Order: sequence, then structure tokens, then C-alpha cells
Amino acid sequence: MTTTSTAAADRLGRAQRAVAEAGWGAVLLSAGTDLRYLTGYNAHVSERLTCLVVPADGEPVLVIPELEAPMVEAAGATTELRPWAETENPFAIVAGQLRKTSAAGTVGIGNRMWAEHVSQLLSAAGNPWELAGPLMAQLRMRKDAAEAAALLEAGEAIDRVHARMGQWLRPGRTEREVGRDIAEAIVTEGHEHAEFIIVGSGPNAASPHHLLSDRVIDAGDVVVVDIGGITEAGYCSDSTRTYIAGGVVSSEVADFYAVLQAAQVAACQAVAPGIPAEDIDATARNIIDEAGYGPNFIHRTGHGIGLDVHEDPYIVSGNNLPIEAGMAFSIEPGIYFPGRYGARIEDIVLCTTEGVRRLNTGSRDLISLGA
Amino acid sequence: MTTTSTAAADRLGRAQRAVAEAGWGAVLLSAGTDLRYLTGYNAHVSERLTCLVVPADGEPVLVIPELEAPMVEAAGATTELRPWAETENPFAIVAGQLRKTSAAGTVGIGNRMWAEHVSQLLSAAGNPWELAGPLMAQLRMRKDAAEAAALLEAGEAIDRVHARMGQWLRPGRTEREVGRDIAEAIVTEGHEHAEFIIVGSGPNAASPHHLLSDRVIDAGDVVVVDIGGITEAGYCSDSTRTYIAGGVVSSEVADFYAVLQAAQVAACQAVAPGIPAEDIDATARNIIDEAGYGPNFIHRTGHGIGLDVHEDPYIVSGNNLPIEAGMAFSIEPGIYFPGRYGARIEDIVLCTTEGVRRLNTGSRDLISLGA
Repeated sequence: MTTTSTAAADRLGRAQRAVAEAGWGAVLLSAGTDLRYLTGYNAHVSERLTCLVVPADGEPVLVIPELEAPMVEAAGATTELRPWAETENPFAIVAGQLRKTSAAGTVGIGNRMWAEHVSQLLSAAGNPWELAGPLMAQLRMRKDAAEAAALLEAGEAIDRVHARMGQWLRPGRTEREVGRDIAEAIVTEGHEHAEFIIVGSGPNAASPHHLLSDRVIDAGDVVVVDIGGITEAGYCSDSTRTYIAGGVVSSEVADFYAVLQAAQVAACQAVAPGIPAEDIDATARNIIDEAGYGPNFIHRTGHGIGLDVHEDPYIVSGNNLPIEAGMAFSIEPGIYFPGRYGARIEDIVLCTTEGVRRLNTGSRDLISLGA
Repeated sequence: MTTTSTAAADRLGRAQRAVAEAGWGAVLLSAGTDLRYLTGYNAHVSERLTCLVVPADGEPVLVIPELEAPMVEAAGATTELRPWAETENPFAIVAGQLRKTSAAGTVGIGNRMWAEHVSQLLSAAGNPWELAGPLMAQLRMRKDAAEAAALLEAGEAIDRVHARMGQWLRPGRTEREVGRDIAEAIVTEGHEHAEFIIVGSGPNAASPHHLLSDRVIDAGDVVVVDIGGITEAGYCSDSTRTYIAGGVVSSEVADFYAVLQAAQVAACQAVAPGIPAEDIDATARNIIDEAGYGPNFIHRTGHGIGLDVHEDPYIVSGNNLPIEAGMAFSIEPGIYFPGRYGARIEDIVLCTTEGVRRLNTGSRDLISLGA
């Protein structure tokens, strides 16, 4: 349990009030971060149903596979448990729990529940359903002090990995070799595990979600390194820096990078309580547009972060949600030239009552490594 | 692409015929192993929709986030692509694809699609839906020669990790320390990444899904080590051995272990074309029951394995599916004494026309390590 039982009880209480205010009977959350947020329990995602039943009134119940009961008990879960044996039907058990509390009310279903669980739960229970995502986002978007500290810890850990990049990233090595070293460092610098590793060199730097390949890094390559892990407390890091693997920076790269950096810095500075999420996106996008690189910035500016790497709030055109103190999200504009090169700069920022706090603090310059 | 384009085209063709035979309009598969099975493309699972539309008739289309298009193209996908930009609605795009081919027909939805995608797809398309799982399982359950070879490669890789256990597992180390060494070895011995690592020592051995803890391993502890990874080709390994961390084996442990081993060996030998899955479970369970340990064997005997660690066929009471040549699954009975100790033995086996082939071939004895 990385969440104290007091925090979990408080969160469950707030969730129940939200369920009541929505006029729903209950929220049903399978293994995943919503469940971890409310109980501290990091359940195993599998075909065997784990389901937290959060009724508007009455006691929440955690339905779990019997073979995981010792693990849940060892983790110190304080919720009432209902283990099910391998030949029982867990969906009927959840339906029975619903009948105890909320009869035919609408149920909110966790956004990342698998279709096979959704389908079987609805068949067993017969209730109308809606997505629980917006309700859960209202709870999860504003990080409390402990969560902000956990995100800062994750940010500092990934900053330490970036600070060591010169040990691994050099011409003659493949992206995959560099990626393996990074993976190890993500753990040794303070994460429970590495969550994703992008080493996009040369033309691969123009592919925003490229991961690793056997491409040999060449002197002078622009290399986008976008990496993140999950700490033992369950919080995510996510930071991108762009490097030059030895050699000289061409003036065209220096030129577009300067625009990118100005856009990223301006978007970070724009963060303050009350600003609509899409205005932060527009801050970065306008600078890039005005420099003529608009068509080369093909993704949103950022995403919320917490127990999930990507969660609300999304920093994207069309999202007019006002940013509040406690919200944490990435600011990560990129400029890409397909087949040639690209660059991205990403920091996680926390909105505070005083304005913005960057949780990644390494230099945002284009970093030349080696000779 | 780990699947050749010929294999992918053949699989897509078989999937389309199955969709037509089911009387459905199309199957919709989001990022995950069903999609990988049919296209070779290992899509990133995220809030951004990736969706393969497999109509009964007409051309399949892969709807992808625009920022991932360079990656999909680099991977050599041969399916028609429909990238969507960050401010487009991908669900409306999928609905448009459905209208081209299958109007109001039932759609099959991939079993592991997230609820948020299910909900938005159904809102946009308005079609009735069913789970695509049974249809996909019919395609995926019988492994072809290339898949059997890939599973054998994964099995040999994890066997090599178990063979090195004496290097890491010894009294005085924590489960977590041992787990980190295992994680590294899973990669160096031939996987792309480690998927799960259970090191259950002493009383933790009685918790079947225990992962790792800071418990210090003691001399004489029974230690269950259940580990697996995913190879570059995407196929999974999963094998359990039970060790004694130095010290002497007590006669009660030796006694129940002998029963467990007899049950596991008998269940492996029972595998042959035509046997119902539940009879393999019963083979192991009867031996354990007769020795008086029935209440201590609290989970099914096994699960299918392939691109997923757990997939059809499940070796469980109530599943009368006849096993066929090409099916691959685990045989993993366990005997657990809560608060004290436990043991499990797990091999992946492949049913062939000649009978069973074990894909894990290390000794199934209780293995004493160190002094």
C-alpha cells in the first residue's frame, strides 16, 4: 500500500459522494489506476475479474480472485473483500453487491475496464451504464501534497537518467543498445520499472512514438530521447530531451530548435490557475506557427500525469477546462520533418497557487554529447 | 513486423471469413494482441484510438493516430491506413468505415478494448455489438508451425533463466534483489522484456500471485519462482519452479511436493488431441485431492499462451473444449498452506498429433540451491 489508509478512506468517501451527486447507483472499477487511487491496491490486470464496487451509499466492496486474497491482505487493503473461487462467476457476485445497495441505478464503469468485463458485468447486472472517467478525473486531476511530492520524486529520478545520457548515447551504438542502458538506469535512479523508452535517432526522431530500433546512431544525428518510469508509489515520470550525438549542429537544426525551445518555455510560463488548457496549447502552437513550422507540430502540447502516464487534463485544442492548482501535466511541443529529423522538449509541470512549478529542471537546450 | 505479410494476409482472410460466417458486419480490434495477430503490428495501447476494422467483405482498414503513422509505416504494415489528426474524432472515422461496408450489422468488439473506446465507438456507430473474443480465440488457439517455434524459443529462454537461479537465489537476499537479477536475465537470455516476476519465499510461497517483496530469504525457505517474458516476436514464456534456498528439506515439504510433482507429470501426460480441457484439470486435481491436499489447490490447472500470457484454452473445471493439435497452454498445479509455505510447478506444453510436447524441459524436482 503506497497510499495511507486514511488517504484511501478519504478518497473513497469523496468518490461515494460524487456517485451520489451524479445520481448513480455505483461505480465499478476493475484492476487499474482508478482502483489504486481509491484503495492503494495495485491489482493485477488480467482476465480474472478484480472489481471495486463503490456504491452511492453503503460499504464499498473489493471483489477479487481468491488466489490473490493473500496478496491483497498482505498489501493491507482496508476495504471489505469478497474473494471468488475459480469456478464461481464473479460477475454475478458484483451484480449481487449492486442489488444490495443500488438496485437498478445507473452504474459508472471505469474507462479502462476491458470489453469482456464490461459485457459480462452488464449481462449479470442489467443496469444502464455510463463511463466513470469524468467522475474519476474530477477526483484525480487535482493532486494533493503527497501526490505532488511523489510526482516531483519521479521527475527528479528521470532528470538523473537524462543527466547521464552521455554515458550511453554515442555514434556507433544502436538505439536498442542505448535503450537497454537507459532502462537499467531508470530503475537504479529511483523507479520500480521503466514504462517506455523512445530513442529516435536521425529520421526516427521525426516519428513521435517511435520506440527503439536497430538503427546505428551516426555522428551528428539529432536524437529524441523520451523516457519515463513508474515509482514504487505508483507515480509516473515522463521527460524528453533532444541530443546531438557528437558532430556539429547544422544551422537549420539550430534554427528550428530555437523556435521549439521558445514555444516550450512560453507554454510553461503560461501555466497559472484559471487558464484554459487549450490556451496553453495555443501558446506553444502560435509561436511554432508564426515561425512557419505549424504543419510540423502534429500532436497536442501535453497530457495530465499521475498514476497514469496519460490522464486528464489534456492540453489540446478544444479542451477549455480551466487549469487549477494541483493539476500536473506535460508541456511537450515537437517539430518534425519526416524522413529527416525532428525534436521535442518535454517537462512535467505542476500548477500551483503561485503559478507554475517545473518538475523536470534539466537544461532545455539542444545538448551535444561527445565529440 | 514479426509476422510475415503473407501470414498476416492469410490471417486477415480467415478472420474475414469468420466474420461473414458469424453473420456480423465487422470486427473492431483496438491496440493489443488480436490486432498484432492479424497484422503483425504491435500498437501502442493508449487513450488515442488505434482500431483495425475487419469487415465481412471489403478491405480491412487500420485507423491510427497520425503521430504514429511513421512508426506503422516503418513497421511495414500492409493494411490500408487511415491516420487521424489530434483534433479529429477517430470514433466517427471508424463509424464511417463501418457504413461503407456493413451498415447496421452486429460488430464484434475485441475483448480487451477499453470501456471508453467501446462506449465512444458504439455511440458513433450505433450498431449492436458482441464480444469478438470467441471468434478470435478460434483463430488464435491453434498455433501454426512458426508460432509453435516461437513459443519453444520463449520456453528455452526462460529455462535458461531458471537454470541460473543458483547465482541469485540465496539466504540473506531479499525477494526484490533476486527479482532484479532475474529481470535482467530474462532480457539477456532472449526476451524483449520481462513480463512478470514472482519470487515467493517462505509464507509468500503460499500466495499464488505474490510478486516481490522486501522479505529477506531465509535458509530452508521454500521459494516459488514463477517468471515470464515476451520475445521480440511477441510470444510469451511462463514457467514456475520451486526451490529450497539452502538448508534442509523438511519431510512434510518433501511429502506434499511429491504429490504435486506426480499431479503435474500426470496432467502433462494426459494431454492429447481430443481430451476435454477440464479432464486435464481433473487429472491433476484428483491426485492432489486423493492425497488430502484438495483444499490447498485453489486455482485452475492452466491457461493457454501465445501472444498473450493468458489466453484460450483455459484448463479449468467447466471447460469441455476438446484439446487439439497446435494448442499451447500451461500445466501448473500448486499446493499452498497459508502463512507457512507452498509450491507450484509449471510447464508450457504443446499438444501435437503425436501427443504432448513440453516447451519447458528443466527438472521438475524441488531444487535445493546453495548450502
